[in-house]
Order: sequence, then structure tokens, then C-alpha cells
Amino acid sequence: MRTRKKKWTDEEIQSNDKIVVDAISNKGSWNKVFGNDNPIYVEIGSGKGRFLCNNALKYPDINFIGLERQESVLALAGRNMDKIIPNALFVLENATNLQEIFEKGEVKRVYLNFSDPWHKKRYYKRRLTYRDFLAQYEEIMNFNSEVFFKTDNKNLFEFSLNEFCNENWKLSNISLDLHNSDIEDNIMTEYEEKFSSQGNPIYRLEARKALNA
Amino acid sequence: MRTRKKKWTDEEIQSNDKIVVDAISNKGSWNKVFGNDNPIYVEIGSGKGRFLCNNALKYPDINFIGLERQESVLALAGRNMDKIIPNALFVLENATNLQEIFEKGEVKRVYLNFSDPWHKKRYYKRRLTYRDFLAQYEEIMNFNSEVFFKTDNKNLFEFSLNEFCNENWKLSNISLDLHNSDIEDNIMTEYEEKFSSQGNPIYRLEARKALNA
Repeated sequence: MRTRKKKWTDEEIQSNDKIVVDAISNKGSWNKVFGNDNPIYVEIGSGKGRFLCNNALKYPDINFIGLERQESVLALAGRNMDKIIPNALFVLENATNLQEIFEKGEVKRVYLNFSDPWHKKRYYKRRLTYRDFLAQYEEIMNFNSEVFFKTDNKNLFEFSLNEFCNENWKLSNISLDLHNSDIEDNIMTEYEEKFSSQGNPIYRLEARKALNA
Repeated sequence: MRTRKKKWTDEEIQSNDKIVVDAISNKGSWNKVFGNDNPIYVEIGSGKGRFLCNNALKYPDINFIGLERQESVLALAGRNMDKIIPNALFVLENATNLQEIFEKGEVKRVYLNFSDPWHKKRYYKRRLTYRDFLAQYEEIMNFNSEVFFKTDNKNLFEFSLNEFCNENWKLSNISLDLHNSDIEDNIMTEYEEKFSSQGNPIYRLEARKALNA
């Protein structure tokens, strides 16, 4: 969802030290930025940041980085963020530059939450579970790549199931109705709360690929 | 669905030469029964037989065997069957005896169509996509085992996705709404026509396991 650019957007992005604009300069040294050797989890399309912040609060021994390409949304996320969270950052970037932002093996897990479904068939290559993106995720992860994906869009989920399987990722904890499943410990995004409260099912999966297996 | 036993059930089963009662005696020699070396596809739970017969008519170079454990349903299938179809047979058996009916490698493909969902959790081991059944299917198939599965039951489909993936089957052509998908060449069962005409989505997948891969 595109949000109108607020007047304070640029200022927020420039002044908020939780928002990294020049992410490329940190390639290979994100652990130095966080000041520890904890694993790094990346959310691609972090929106207003609720999922990322709640995860960071719940898992203090994980470093969370949220990528968001929309400046106005990113500024909101930065403004809303509790500044005392030491293990979360936002980055002004999209999914097409991953290999410029992260070294191979620098990321332990990728989250895709309610990504744009690009519902028109001719745009299928833009979907974040399209095979070229999956190959990119592998490039920034270690020997055990893992992607955690959820969406309310049935067509995107079907597309994603097929892409992951075709590319030989191993799926687990697949849910066709997350909020009525046995899967515990779900942290909701803003979208998720809205869509699920309207009675729509949420689809979810975990995908892992053992490199050199 | 259990059908009331008709008076003519026993007679039909005994007299209809398209219904094999003593399937075990044909183990390892089903190709002799058909009189050719064509591949054998098995549908487990063939019901009234429409899917099997229409496949047999469409693919004359494949031998089709339908397993059905309910005598009254089997008798109906036998009675309805066009007797001139040379490449289809029904067998009075259920899925628990597969290895007594077929030699290893004797079957090329298994179809599971609208299997009993056994919706109560404590009965999950009875679902025909439970891991013990998947292991049995491998035992009767050749180096390339393949299972084609469809259902209208969302919970069974979710369970099945997880079971196949956990057991390292490779999935393809996954559909969460078969009748609104690009998948062509779908032959409907009696149940499928009924459920989909009520607007319910049909779920489908193909699963393959390369033995010794």
C-alpha cells in the first residue's frame, strides 16, 4: 500500500539513527553495526515495522534488519520504533539489491510477510518468491538458507509453493489457515491483524535449502 | 460415503469379470492379466469408477486398476463400467494391503482422489497421505514413484503438503483451486463434480520421489 509522503519523511529518514540509508557501506560488517555476533534475520518489506520490533523485543539475541523501499512507510516505522531496542534496524532498500547489502552467509533467515502479490500474470517475475529472488536469498545466507513466508493472498501462496518446490527448497510447517492452526508463537504484522480480523485465512510456510547438501 | 448394500452386490462382485476379488494371486503378474506391458496406474479408493473409466478411455496405452474397499460401491462401479474397456479393472481391496497385491515396481503411478479426510486429529494415521502410506506407495512403485492427489478438504490438503515435504517427496503442479487454474486435462470424479459445482475449491498436487537418487 502506497502511503502519501509526509513532509517530515526526509528529515526523519536522515536524522533517525535506526534508519540506515547507505546500507551498501555496511556490507559484510553488519555484526559490527550491532556490536555483537548474533545471527541476523532480514525482513524484506518491513512496512511500518511492527513485526520486526516485536520480534526484536521477544528475541534479544537475534539482530533484525527490516528492508523497506517506500520512504514514507520507512519514516513511519522509524518514528514508531522504540528507540531502546538495540537489536533492530531499518534500511531504505528493496529486494533487488540484496547482494550489494549483504555478504554471502551474513544473513541467517529471510522473512517475507504479505509481499505484493503482483496479481497480473505478466508481472510474476516481480513476486518475491519468484525463482530469481529465491536464488538471491541463497546468495546472502549460509549453508542453511531459510525463508519464512506468510501471505493472505491465495494465488501468491500457490505460486510460491510451486516456486519453492521447483527450486528444491524443503518446505515445513505449511499452514493454509495460520490463525486456526497448531503453529504457535506467531507475531502479527499490521496487515495480518487487519486481514485476519476480516475472517480471511493467512497462509504460511517455512522453506529451507541446504547448500552443498 | 457409505452406500447401503444392494441385494445384487455379492452377485455383481462374483460374476463381473471386471472386478477382481482375489487380487493377491495376481501379485507380480498384473501385466499378464491385461495382456500387455503397458504401465499400470492405481487409484486408491476408486468409488463409483468414473475417474478410472474416463482415464482408461482417454489413455488406452495405460492400464488402470481401481482399489475400492466398499463392496456396494465396487459393485456399482462394476455394473456401470463399459465392458468394452480393456485397460481397466476394479479390485476389492483397501490401501493397507498394497504390498500383498503388487510387486515392487509393478505400479507406475498412484492416484488419491478425495480420500477420507479423517478429520479428527487422533485418526491422522489413517489418512492416505500419512507417512506410513507414502512409504507403502514407494514400495509398489519403480525408481520414479509418483502420486497424484486431489481433495476438496483443506485440512487434509494442508496435512498432505506437510507429510509429502517431510518425507522428501518433490511436489509440482500444486493448485489451491484446480478448476480456476491453468492445469489442463483434469478428469473429474463424481465427488469432484458435486463439490466444485457448489463453489468449493479443489486442491491438487503431484508428488514424486526418485528412489536411489
